[in-house]
Amino acid sequence: MAASADRADRADAPQVTRTKVGIVGGGPAGLLLSHLLSKQGIENVVIELRDHETIKNTHRAGILEQQAVKMLTESGVDGRVLTHGDEHEGIDLRFNGESHPLNFPDLVDATVTLYAQNEVFIDLAAARKRDGGDIRYESEVIEVADLKSDTPKIRYRDVSAGADPDAVHEVHCDVLVGTDGSRSFCRRAVGQEQGHQDFKIEYPFAWFGILTEAPKSSPELIYANSPHGFTLISQRSANVQRMYFQCDPAEKTEDWSDDRIWSELQKRVDGPDGFQLKTGPIFDKTVLGFRSFVREPMSHGNMFLAGDAAHTVPPTGAKGLNLAFADIKVLFEALDSFYATGSRELLDGYSETALKRVWKAQNFSYWMTSMLHTRKDAHPFETKRALGELETVTSSRYGQQYLAESYTGWPHA
Amino acid sequence: MAASADRADRADAPQVTRTKVGIVGGGPAGLLLSHLLSKQGIENVVIELRDHETIKNTHRAGILEQQAVKMLTESGVDGRVLTHGDEHEGIDLRFNGESHPLNFPDLVDATVTLYAQNEVFIDLAAARKRDGGDIRYESEVIEVADLKSDTPKIRYRDVSAGADPDAVHEVHCDVLVGTDGSRSFCRRAVGQEQGHQDFKIEYPFAWFGILTEAPKSSPELIYANSPHGFTLISQRSANVQRMYFQCDPAEKTEDWSDDRIWSELQKRVDGPDGFQLKTGPIFDKTVLGFRSFVREPMSHGNMFLAGDAAHTVPPTGAKGLNLAFADIKVLFEALDSFYATGSRELLDGYSETALKRVWKAQNFSYWMTSMLHTRKDAHPFETKRALGELETVTSSRYGQQYLAESYTGWPHA
Repeated sequence: MAASADRADRADAPQVTRTKVGIVGGGPAGLLLSHLLSKQGIENVVIELRDHETIKNTHRAGILEQQAVKMLTESGVDGRVLTHGDEHEGIDLRFNGESHPLNFPDLVDATVTLYAQNEVFIDLAAARKRDGGDIRYESEVIEVADLKSDTPKIRYRDVSAGADPDAVHEVHCDVLVGTDGSRSFCRRAVGQEQGHQDFKIEYPFAWFGILTEAPKSSPELIYANSPHGFTLISQRSANVQRMYFQCDPAEKTEDWSDDRIWSELQKRVDGPDGFQLKTGPIFDKTVLGFRSFVREPMSHGNMFLAGDAAHTVPPTGAKGLNLAFADIKVLFEALDSFYATGSRELLDGYSETALKRVWKAQNFSYWMTSMLHTRKDAHPFETKRALGELETVTSSRYGQQYLAESYTGWPHA
Repeated sequence: MAASADRADRADAPQVTRTKVGIVGGGPAGLLLSHLLSKQGIENVVIELRDHETIKNTHRAGILEQQAVKMLTESGVDGRVLTHGDEHEGIDLRFNGESHPLNFPDLVDATVTLYAQNEVFIDLAAARKRDGGDIRYESEVIEVADLKSDTPKIRYRDVSAGADPDAVHEVHCDVLVGTDGSRSFCRRAVGQEQGHQDFKIEYPFAWFGILTEAPKSSPELIYANSPHGFTLISQRSANVQRMYFQCDPAEKTEDWSDDRIWSELQKRVDGPDGFQLKTGPIFDKTVLGFRSFVREPMSHGNMFLAGDAAHTVPPTGAKGLNLAFADIKVLFEALDSFYATGSRELLDGYSETALKRVWKAQNFSYWMTSMLHTRKDAHPFETKRALGELETVTSSRYGQQYLAESYTGWPHA
């Protein structure tokens, strides 16, 4: 038995990489952290399940707060966000068939930038490649271990074509970071019995999203509350537009012809001003379920969670990627301080600091969602109250400023 | 049969008063309208079930918006509100055991005035008496009729000591106004089948209110969100204080000793700052249920509803009396225009105009309630979200201004 175990040990002896920060998840959050750490000379390795092409083609919304844009440009990530991103100066809150434009520069001296999340990934991945970053794609994490020790470990297999799928690789690090998205392996490795708590709510509706070859219907995003449900009219380029409408989570895309979709979208923006959507062929249809989720705390020993791995927000208000970047800012500064001074103070405070913004963003996303959507089972009082809230916000400069400040992003911690 | 009916008709022939505006309900809203109309020479009669002493001793909270104070003083009601009212420059939002003061003059250049609702009644009743107003106390309305005609009618009995309780009196008017409170006879005289709709929600909690002989615990009102539930620490005078704490609607006052009450109140304001309530003997204990309610539309033919007769708000945010006064302002201007020009335009628009503010106030009251209270059955996410909202509001000047503007009152229409 002992001899056999010895042989097995030798045969399966993992290939070990020793680094300072081991990062699980190579989406925008993981790559940004890796980029910032490398710039400070803090060695790190990123382990990512998917291949580069798959992430590159994963389409997600992308509305960047001014500070998220700055994190990219000031840290020397290719400045395509400035040249290819589309700076937006406001949104239009539409209800009772009337338009209520909010102008962000006037209200809070800020703007947001429309720049798709996969473009952010492309820029970060290119910067990491340029700077010789150690990003291991197609690597399936099978275990995160010794999280409470000084040497947490990531065990993974190389699942790329031609690799030995049985060989186990290990990354031994000082600090392990989980930026592996909403189904986070890292998060699921620790649970309630270890003092962790998950807070979540589901919503009784989803978003039906389309991409269409059509000119812009409006220069700014329209968030519309209508008796038929919520709709969001957004833009992607001069010729391609993205639109969403609230639907049943069980809705099937195949039941929706282009004509039916356009008719549904149009009736949700109808009003005495005769506003008309500009239509075109629809080339992508998806149903997006959504929920609110927070894991507390966002750390466990020497493992730290950031971005979707720790929290999910509904898309209304576009806080997802921005919140991930805000986490990364706090975590990067804590790691930088740890390696510069040896003090764990900021690392130990990471979860509490990050969660303050997380709950503000959760509230904002919940607020925008509940104010703009209609629940099928909604009490008629609630429908009227939401319209009263929209009226209060849009008829008050303070209300407009309060919303605009949250939308464009609170100052980073 | 015919002869007998004739005799009965003669015997019961009602005493008829002909006037322009017949007002059912002699609380602050009805008396203020009566006062404003008389000042413009528009004849009116007020019918009120209770006697003067009963209303005078009906204690209600009283936080007056700046504009409500102006409506009293500028219309020549005795200015005791200025000499005896207590001007407040802010509130304190307390959560996570910490104080977050809001200063209204700094934020929105406004204040509110603490002046009990029964004092407002005393001043208005005195002004009506001084000016020879026709206020008929102890008069029980038994019918409001012909509401869609040019001559709506109020039928009532005089229930004062010594009066004939069988004699029917009538007020014939051009316009009938119902300001008869939350159990409004006028409102209940018309229903859903006539195109009216009631919007309401109940809350799974109530307020336990006390009056205590104690010094002020704080110069300003404290609205506290605590893990034990909401509490409101308010003031009445130098020696008498009013406090409330969220409780079960079925709570019985006899189960609560002074000690138990003080202990409950104290734990809801406990915090690292060591804040201590100043205690004293408790001489009044009440449990106040509360709900949100709106009747739409607020008119039916030539009958118009105002104040609690048309809507109820939960007390968090103190909008009840202020909203009644805002209704009266809109209705008075509509009646003034009707009698000056013969045009019904403003009268016909009364309900729509008033409802705009009503739904803003409903939303504000609901917002304050949901942000500050804890539901027993609350989802843990919701509890955290509310704290995230309090953090967002108090950490942002725009958020503070948005709340302060609503609390001190939007401009009148």
